[in-house]
Amino acid sequence: MAKKFENSINVFAPATVANLACGFDVMGLAIDSPGDEVHVEFNRNKEIRIRKISGDGGKLSLDPQKNTAAVSIQSLIDDLHIDQGFDIYIKKKMPLGSGLGSSAASSVAGVFAANELLGRPYSRRELVPFAMEGERIACGSAHADNVAPSMMGGIVLIRSYSPLDIISLPAPKNLMIVVVHPQVEVLTKDSRAVLPRKIDMSTGIAQWANTAALTAGLYSNDFDLIARSVVDHVAEPFRASLIPHFEDVKSAALFSGALACSISGSGPSIFAFAEGKKAAKEIAYGMQMQFKKNKIKNTAYISSVNTKGVIKLKA
Amino acid sequence: MAKKFENSINVFAPATVANLACGFDVMGLAIDSPGDEVHVEFNRNKEIRIRKISGDGGKLSLDPQKNTAAVSIQSLIDDLHIDQGFDIYIKKKMPLGSGLGSSAASSVAGVFAANELLGRPYSRRELVPFAMEGERIACGSAHADNVAPSMMGGIVLIRSYSPLDIISLPAPKNLMIVVVHPQVEVLTKDSRAVLPRKIDMSTGIAQWANTAALTAGLYSNDFDLIARSVVDHVAEPFRASLIPHFEDVKSAALFSGALACSISGSGPSIFAFAEGKKAAKEIAYGMQMQFKKNKIKNTAYISSVNTKGVIKLKA
Repeated sequence: MAKKFENSINVFAPATVANLACGFDVMGLAIDSPGDEVHVEFNRNKEIRIRKISGDGGKLSLDPQKNTAAVSIQSLIDDLHIDQGFDIYIKKKMPLGSGLGSSAASSVAGVFAANELLGRPYSRRELVPFAMEGERIACGSAHADNVAPSMMGGIVLIRSYSPLDIISLPAPKNLMIVVVHPQVEVLTKDSRAVLPRKIDMSTGIAQWANTAALTAGLYSNDFDLIARSVVDHVAEPFRASLIPHFEDVKSAALFSGALACSISGSGPSIFAFAEGKKAAKEIAYGMQMQFKKNKIKNTAYISSVNTKGVIKLKA
Repeated sequence: MAKKFENSINVFAPATVANLACGFDVMGLAIDSPGDEVHVEFNRNKEIRIRKISGDGGKLSLDPQKNTAAVSIQSLIDDLHIDQGFDIYIKKKMPLGSGLGSSAASSVAGVFAANELLGRPYSRRELVPFAMEGERIACGSAHADNVAPSMMGGIVLIRSYSPLDIISLPAPKNLMIVVVHPQVEVLTKDSRAVLPRKIDMSTGIAQWANTAALTAGLYSNDFDLIARSVVDHVAEPFRASLIPHFEDVKSAALFSGALACSISGSGPSIFAFAEGKKAAKEIAYGMQMQFKKNKIKNTAYISSVNTKGVIKLKA
């Protein structure tokens, strides 16, 4: 049977929660929704073009050199030494600047789609560096803690960047993630700027004890251990003040039964871990009420760990 | 059948390798040998007495307030609110001040033996805090990264001290530990003094990425991952210069096939991880040759992970 080549593809790349508290800058996970829907098709003029972006409130540039999906595809075709052109249509179905890896989702969607259309020369894992180039445009540095989970699904650990060493960690089945996104703006550069360049050795020791413990908790399905270890000594103490009512929302999450609660990526979204769907719903309600009480519009997402990552959608 | 009460007991508490490179101050493992043999018996005069210490070259005090085994037992009987006396006989079958947890082994042996004689009021895990009191006398602080593995066996992670949270990590069956102890003196206080009080955030990030990765490697029996992650960015760079020819010995270990190599505890012993016994022997030979070449007497120990910890010996 001859392989049927396609000229176009629709894909969905999920939002991601990076850091996971103790895993600052090295861990991330994919959630089921929200995410980006991206349509990519071949064109004949050898250019990569952003044809349309919806759902971004007009905030994103159509200039392919400034768009993460276009940059990631460009990085792929440069590597393949081909000059294929692509037309890209992006439906942002997630908030921008939310700490949920919006730019990473577009970047992943773009390069995954192009790779599929080209007959899949690369594996998902191999595509991560191309998607990281998209992130570089958006964030100024080629981080992988959003890109890798959006691409590969699941919970990932970025052990090293040179060489790139991505480890998939197991996701306990009953582990639910609650994410609440408040409609406030926290600039990534501000949330970077508040972090100290140096930390006390004792702080570091506490952090890596927890990082190891969280890893053990994930492997052993030990929800108590996950709860004890998802604590951030290095970023949350500094970033919390950038998110209005963070402490109240965190307290509400824990009071409502969350295993743990911290900042998603560089914020302002706040995530909580829960055991089971019922608990997750109560936690989401508790967190949302805190924001509502303070007249801050917000959206909650409840999800298990998305183990698939970016997927092809039906045409 | 009536329970036969014993008046005396012989126990063996194993040496331990603390830190395991990336797990600085939070990880440790027990090895099969060397270790301490300790005989403990009830006495009737309500005092804890050190009756004899052999194998220490006369370096250890017979004053029970300065002896880790006596202090750990005192801490236990204080907790139990009894005034039972014990006579303690210690055979140091391991080098002192070697970075192999000598003081911890005596401390563990003492309190384990007394607990057995008293009808086992506490579990091994519950005995750790008492053994830590012995460590406090020896080291000035109540660390658990030698005490916990010597008591409980296996590879342990100390997630937190308040509350004390000890996590047993799995030990891959074929994982061998080579320890080479050079006859040079490194004072614990010196090896503490060379450490910086603060570390760069980026250094911390690299360290906790590795700590998580090592944990993943242990759970998944991934020797390649263990090899990549057993790297220490925070202590080894500063302590290496305290151990003559450390870099040469480490290079020899890696050249001979070691998965990884770093300082055992605060040194001067150097440990290496190996996959399988044959590799371990070659690595030990390579490491010893480097010391020998430089006219430094040394002893090598080859062991799998000792999963039992302290044990009762036949009378």
